[in-house]
Amino acid sequence: MAKKYKQVKASLDSLHRIFTVPEASNSKLSSIEKAISKNLNSFLQDHVPLINCSLTDIEKDFCDPYIPEQTTFVSDHTEFLLEKLIAQSVHTSSPRFIGHMTSALPYFLMPLSKIMIALNQNTVKIETSKAFTPLERQVLGMLHNLIYQRDANFYNSWMHSSAHSLGAFCSGGTIANITALWVARNNQLKPEGNFKGVAEEGISHAMRYYGYKDLVVLVSERGHYSLKKSADILGIGQHSLIAIPTDDNNRIHLDKLEAVLIELKENNIKPFALVGVAGTTETGNIDPLDKMADIAERECIHFHVDAAWGGASLMSNKQRPKLKGIERADSVTIDAHKQLYVPMGTGMVLFKDPSLASAIEHHADYILRKSSKDLGCHTLEGSRSGITMLLFFSLKIIGRQGYELLIDQSVDKAMYFAELIKQKEDFELVSAPELCLLTYRYLPTLAREALALATSEQTDQIHALLNTLTIFIQKRQREMGYSFVSRTRLTPSKWNRRPTDVFRVVLANPLTTHDILNDVLEEQRVIAQQSTTALPTLIILVDSILSKFR
Amino acid sequence: MAKKYKQVKASLDSLHRIFTVPEASNSKLSSIEKAISKNLNSFLQDHVPLINCSLTDIEKDFCDPYIPEQTTFVSDHTEFLLEKLIAQSVHTSSPRFIGHMTSALPYFLMPLSKIMIALNQNTVKIETSKAFTPLERQVLGMLHNLIYQRDANFYNSWMHSSAHSLGAFCSGGTIANITALWVARNNQLKPEGNFKGVAEEGISHAMRYYGYKDLVVLVSERGHYSLKKSADILGIGQHSLIAIPTDDNNRIHLDKLEAVLIELKENNIKPFALVGVAGTTETGNIDPLDKMADIAERECIHFHVDAAWGGASLMSNKQRPKLKGIERADSVTIDAHKQLYVPMGTGMVLFKDPSLASAIEHHADYILRKSSKDLGCHTLEGSRSGITMLLFFSLKIIGRQGYELLIDQSVDKAMYFAELIKQKEDFELVSAPELCLLTYRYLPTLAREALALATSEQTDQIHALLNTLTIFIQKRQREMGYSFVSRTRLTPSKWNRRPTDVFRVVLANPLTTHDILNDVLEEQRVIAQQSTTALPTLIILVDSILSKFR
Repeated sequence: MAKKYKQVKASLDSLHRIFTVPEASNSKLSSIEKAISKNLNSFLQDHVPLINCSLTDIEKDFCDPYIPEQTTFVSDHTEFLLEKLIAQSVHTSSPRFIGHMTSALPYFLMPLSKIMIALNQNTVKIETSKAFTPLERQVLGMLHNLIYQRDANFYNSWMHSSAHSLGAFCSGGTIANITALWVARNNQLKPEGNFKGVAEEGISHAMRYYGYKDLVVLVSERGHYSLKKSADILGIGQHSLIAIPTDDNNRIHLDKLEAVLIELKENNIKPFALVGVAGTTETGNIDPLDKMADIAERECIHFHVDAAWGGASLMSNKQRPKLKGIERADSVTIDAHKQLYVPMGTGMVLFKDPSLASAIEHHADYILRKSSKDLGCHTLEGSRSGITMLLFFSLKIIGRQGYELLIDQSVDKAMYFAELIKQKEDFELVSAPELCLLTYRYLPTLAREALALATSEQTDQIHALLNTLTIFIQKRQREMGYSFVSRTRLTPSKWNRRPTDVFRVVLANPLTTHDILNDVLEEQRVIAQQSTTALPTLIILVDSILSKFR
Repeated sequence: MAKKYKQVKASLDSLHRIFTVPEASNSKLSSIEKAISKNLNSFLQDHVPLINCSLTDIEKDFCDPYIPEQTTFVSDHTEFLLEKLIAQSVHTSSPRFIGHMTSALPYFLMPLSKIMIALNQNTVKIETSKAFTPLERQVLGMLHNLIYQRDANFYNSWMHSSAHSLGAFCSGGTIANITALWVARNNQLKPEGNFKGVAEEGISHAMRYYGYKDLVVLVSERGHYSLKKSADILGIGQHSLIAIPTDDNNRIHLDKLEAVLIELKENNIKPFALVGVAGTTETGNIDPLDKMADIAERECIHFHVDAAWGGASLMSNKQRPKLKGIERADSVTIDAHKQLYVPMGTGMVLFKDPSLASAIEHHADYILRKSSKDLGCHTLEGSRSGITMLLFFSLKIIGRQGYELLIDQSVDKAMYFAELIKQKEDFELVSAPELCLLTYRYLPTLAREALALATSEQTDQIHALLNTLTIFIQKRQREMGYSFVSRTRLTPSKWNRRPTDVFRVVLANPLTTHDILNDVLEEQRVIAQQSTTALPTLIILVDSILSKFR
């Protein structure tokens, strides 16, 4: 593993050179950069081998815990970059990579990204970001407008106001959700009388002052795992995240939500946030946001919508009605690095009321002084990059109608794939697409027939074997490296809420074709036959069940 | 402000093109990219005007809250990019920008950044990052080794272990500090008997179970503002962040710390973390870490060191002794985007004990499954970029000795600047450099003489006027755009803890020269004379004091 690097006698002169002299245009690094800039997919096809090493093998290339003593040349490392890192990375932009929310990105983002990195602004404060601060405020205004559609006067008043904030940029949906619930918690337990508020005095004092036995957050059982993390961090505990059961379409069950609210009231437990999910991570379904907004309004609860995934669908006039009610949310999470097609690290939370974020305002002496317009006054993170510029130019270039087309075609493609799965005798659609996500599994024809006749115990056995088979197929397909779908575990009502492992497909990449979708199923069918334990055992079990009825 | 963009009839074909066809090499965007890649500083010197617009003027270019309807060409926006964004950004890499911790960066990071963005890995899970996961674990190992210097066997055992974590990458020092205190809180209030732990049951239940009246964190009054934010988020409240006074060198006062510990014990208040500062943000001073470690050990308190700034100094054998005791910290924050010279967004927290982070472990069904090596199991953030690759290659190329030279010369330069200030009759060094930070102010000779003779009331008046003058000079110098120093407010013991506004200088940029430092003082002296209120009033006051003694 140990590499022999050419040593450079470290001197200030030679070190100054790396800060002042650019990479030669004929260097290996420059040539990799150029090839990637010219055609990313063909470069990766050439350099990311189909059959990849196992993770354990890859780890062998990354096992040295020592920072090398000597200074070396950049060119000493380009082979490693190419063969060990790039070649062993995941081809997330491949049209055959349909398992997660990463997609191909527009090419114009590459030069823009380089410019962004070169400028190296720090958006925590104006002194290190200048135009990037109003730019970020404008982008927050645009997204705020996408959701809340307030008039020009509203944005004139608040977009650039120092004491206000239409939202906060952050690295991703997790920080966005934590920020939203932080705001909700602090507003619920705000200063009053001689109580200085939870931000100052902490949760125990706050609960004593307000006389609550407990504080909880309500969300459907399909809520993102970051909400559990939020409940932990914010000091209310994961037990305070109440998971409301979902209906047959993975949407929050409103009657059950109402029942929980009554129970909480009887026990003097205060729900300080109701979270609607607009595009569950696992199935892409959208909660009945409008009805949830009614309930939140009636109960005076902060209504947060986690639209990390689905928020981008507001760009489409065709999809927008599915999110009806989102404009009534007190806060909304959107990840631009999902279906707004910008690189990783572009999450945000939007606030309906521009003064809401004052509940989490922080100041310091050397920056973020009171009345400054520094963005850092209202963000959970401190120093941050100027990545918002990538979203800014994407919005300007692609435009609403461009996004609408991209999003509509992704949903259409999911509808096509769902139909394709339904037509296959040996596949089962588990969750139908509402946005561009769906789940399904391989279900051999005979197993399907047997399930119709099996006892409850036999049904359990069949499902257990199908689960093993699903996991086998998904892992093998991923390892083969030709296509990638992800998997998760659902509890479909069709199967009496039995834990059911399923393939999960996200059709965000505009370059994914119908042919690719056909191929994915074909490949899975072939892989299934390679199972040496689950499939043979399943066949024996199924045969024995069916034989009694023949 | 409204621009006329050429409209493109949005069609799937034209949209697919932006995902498949790179920017033409003769496009305006490509030419900006090339110029920046070739010589960032000269490009910015040509395009960032010396006299910049006011923020209010800049905001006029960023006031449209509407996402444009139509799709447009990239080339429609390059003029705006150049003239409104780049030209109005902060030239953070300028050797004359010595006010904050951003510096020039090595050129090799530019092509690497583009490759990083193009690969668009998501390091939350292996399925979207593959080699980037072991790479990140290796970099954490390297930084862990830099601090804790454990043997090879230690790293062999834990670096790639699924249930363990030598640290966590994150967007910056704020998230790193929150993560460390989150770990400390959860370990302090861990599951026991039938209590399921604070992560599950929340703070109120935990405090009742453990019988604490309150939970607090101890740090010097120079602690970073992110610690206050942490106390708020984590639900203990900002009142629970106890600020211990500092000595004359901005280091925590150990006797006062001991006194607070006794008082807390008497009141049944539990300190669950003691935070040492290794490089205060405002003055760069380092707490007596070794003695703090003794105290933390004796009291069984989690010892966290916030070395966001100073951590990089461990690379230098000459500076390392200043941080003695850091190797005894339970957790350490380091920001690589500070003196490890990588772009914004590269913070991390390291854990001495690889199993410490199990206190904040989270799982989900579709990723982060138990026993997976997914990095997301132990990070506060969810989806994250592959930015660690930039630190990886920087460590490999610059090497320990290269970093040592860069850091030593930055400290030497600060020593030089401190001497220079001392030699000037009309400047006052307020905090001497321990690392490459120092603070000072403009103090006209006559004002200095008057201070020696003034009554207490007169001294207050003089300081108030000096503060106004310092703020005037700093703002004017920033607005002129030729040089930049920042400012903060300290309470130097020399001036009986009077709030004193000072210039703050960070000498991280390797390209800053002695001549530039001379120029900065000269410019400040000239600007001072332009003061039409503070300086004339000061002169009248000072004259009246001195006249009595003449």
